[in-house]
Amino acid sequence: MSLGGSGRGSGVDPLQRLVDALKRLPGIGGKTAQRLAFFILRQPDDYAHELAAALVDVKARIHECAICCNLTADTTCSFCTDARRTRGEVCVVATVPELQAVEKSGFRGLYHVLHGLLAPLEGIGPSELRVGRLLERVGEGEIKEVIVATSPTVEGETTALYLHKLLSPLGVRVTRIASGVPIGGDLQYADQATLARALEGRRDMGKG
Amino acid sequence: MSLGGSGRGSGVDPLQRLVDALKRLPGIGGKTAQRLAFFILRQPDDYAHELAAALVDVKARIHECAICCNLTADTTCSFCTDARRTRGEVCVVATVPELQAVEKSGFRGLYHVLHGLLAPLEGIGPSELRVGRLLERVGEGEIKEVIVATSPTVEGETTALYLHKLLSPLGVRVTRIASGVPIGGDLQYADQATLARALEGRRDMGKG
Repeated sequence: MSLGGSGRGSGVDPLQRLVDALKRLPGIGGKTAQRLAFFILRQPDDYAHELAAALVDVKARIHECAICCNLTADTTCSFCTDARRTRGEVCVVATVPELQAVEKSGFRGLYHVLHGLLAPLEGIGPSELRVGRLLERVGEGEIKEVIVATSPTVEGETTALYLHKLLSPLGVRVTRIASGVPIGGDLQYADQATLARALEGRRDMGKG
Repeated sequence: MSLGGSGRGSGVDPLQRLVDALKRLPGIGGKTAQRLAFFILRQPDDYAHELAAALVDVKARIHECAICCNLTADTTCSFCTDARRTRGEVCVVATVPELQAVEKSGFRGLYHVLHGLLAPLEGIGPSELRVGRLLERVGEGEIKEVIVATSPTVEGETTALYLHKLLSPLGVRVTRIASGVPIGGDLQYADQATLARALEGRRDMGKG
């Protein structure tokens, strides 16, 4: 983008520099980055400075919880320090947004965030995930059940199988969230694999 | 968004602060802001710091060209200082992205950026735009033609009419870019107003 001024003066054009930085965000292309940059320029100085301060602050203060690897500004996250939660159940998730989705569903046990899934082809093995810390937690004996709540994708299933093999010998119950036709979903549009899994996971009715 | 840590410790949760700041960007909703914040957290510190520095830098160094009100890091923009451009023609645009669009079309005169369009209902009158500076430029006598390249919308047309009334008495030629069916556009899908304008603006063929 030529702004009519970028060729002269001191080094990189400041607007081009901002556009380049914004373009690195996921889902933000060149046109959107430019639109955002012009928006920021039109705002009072306060906004750019607040966003800049928030960026620096988030990197300085947010880190992983010493227990469950959730992101927090404290030593341990509020889930881990909340005495009202069921401490015998640990739900294993790949990412923090997935933790939040599980929390919204009403789960009130503890969590463990892996920060990724096994993907051997991309070079992501167990050492890239927070598996060691989970093993330690299970070893401490308080946890009775590990619920593996990774997505039913190739990586999610691979990770679930790996965790099952790793943790079962320790005497802890390892469970997997159910897969099947989503609530409100139309059978007609469900894919083969989902339907096969829904049939496989069928249960006797009339027990409720 | 509860991160499991926002309720304790020192004031606002840093992640929530970043999400709130990102949410103020146009087209960025709550979910996208959260996705961007997690992306930023996953990057090395360098990225957040570069984006923060670019934000502060852009506000500190980018301002309006003293002549045409284009955005620049210098006193005057490179269009105004470029001696090879036709100095008798000035293309009036509403915004810098629109200036860039005109420049891409091959125009090689000078520009004037209004930084908005007249919108009386929203309280945007001539004093909110860079009209005074345009009047001064025309008064200096070098400009022979003012090409009003605002969008053919209500605000764009209102602004064009206003500029025509204001500038014609000064002896300068005031022209308006043509409206009609866009190149490659399908007549079948052109709206009534566009077709009416295309008919009104018809020209004799066979002169090329």
